[in-house]
Amino acid sequence: MDKVPILNLYDYLLVSIQTDIHDLIIQALQEDILTAIRKTHARGVLIDISTLDIVDSFMARTLRDTALMARLLGAYVVITGIQPAVAITLVDLGLNPEHLYTATDVNAGFELLHDLIADEDSRMYEEVPGYENQQD
Amino acid sequence: MDKVPILNLYDYLLVSIQTDIHDLIIQALQEDILTAIRKTHARGVLIDISTLDIVDSFMARTLRDTALMARLLGAYVVITGIQPAVAITLVDLGLNPEHLYTATDVNAGFELLHDLIADEDSRMYEEVPGYENQQD
Repeated sequence: MDKVPILNLYDYLLVSIQTDIHDLIIQALQEDILTAIRKTHARGVLIDISTLDIVDSFMARTLRDTALMARLLGAYVVITGIQPAVAITLVDLGLNPEHLYTATDVNAGFELLHDLIADEDSRMYEEVPGYENQQD
Repeated sequence: MDKVPILNLYDYLLVSIQTDIHDLIIQALQEDILTAIRKTHARGVLIDISTLDIVDSFMARTLRDTALMARLLGAYVVITGIQPAVAITLVDLGLNPEHLYTATDVNAGFELLHDLIADEDSRMYEEVPGYENQQD
């Protein structure tokens, strides 16, 4: 069966999806991404779908679910390269864009991941009680 | 028709090939890579084939040819993630490993590209006649 490659690039995982992907492959990809997050302790996953001209409801739901599941494992998912037609379909399908981090291209996506993680790290410090006092 | 995504990552192009790729797609990919090099002025292309369990002679020849053609456009090609079975086939098919730059994984591949380009830059300066004298 076809397998979508998951590349381990420094602290991130990078997945680029080819056109005409079957439901079974997308489902396997979801599991592979979660396994890879566990294995590599990656805190960011970038999924590029710039070659996708079209998405169906299964693909849209799987992408959203993968992002939610990845959050449970401590990783952010950013989707890049969404084409206009795909954006239309995603909204038509009822996907709430607030549930998905997106960026124009891979470079912008990595920057967004970097910012999200830095932001999370700074919030983690704030939450430590008495942390600011210890700085004195 | 399926299309292999070519990601523009900073100064490089990144291509990850999925399993079960047809000859027509590989041929289109060759053209797409060369067009992308021209368009982005990328000096390095990384092709990850870690999900490929097997290569045939057409794929092997196309990979080698793409590397040679990219050189003519001023870009280096590094192939990463070659599996043992693929390495066996490549040598059995008569591919001279000296004609291909390879690395274990994507990170090592980007480092190799960085070194190759830095090396080329330093050689370019050496070749300028009287360059050393101008430094005095």
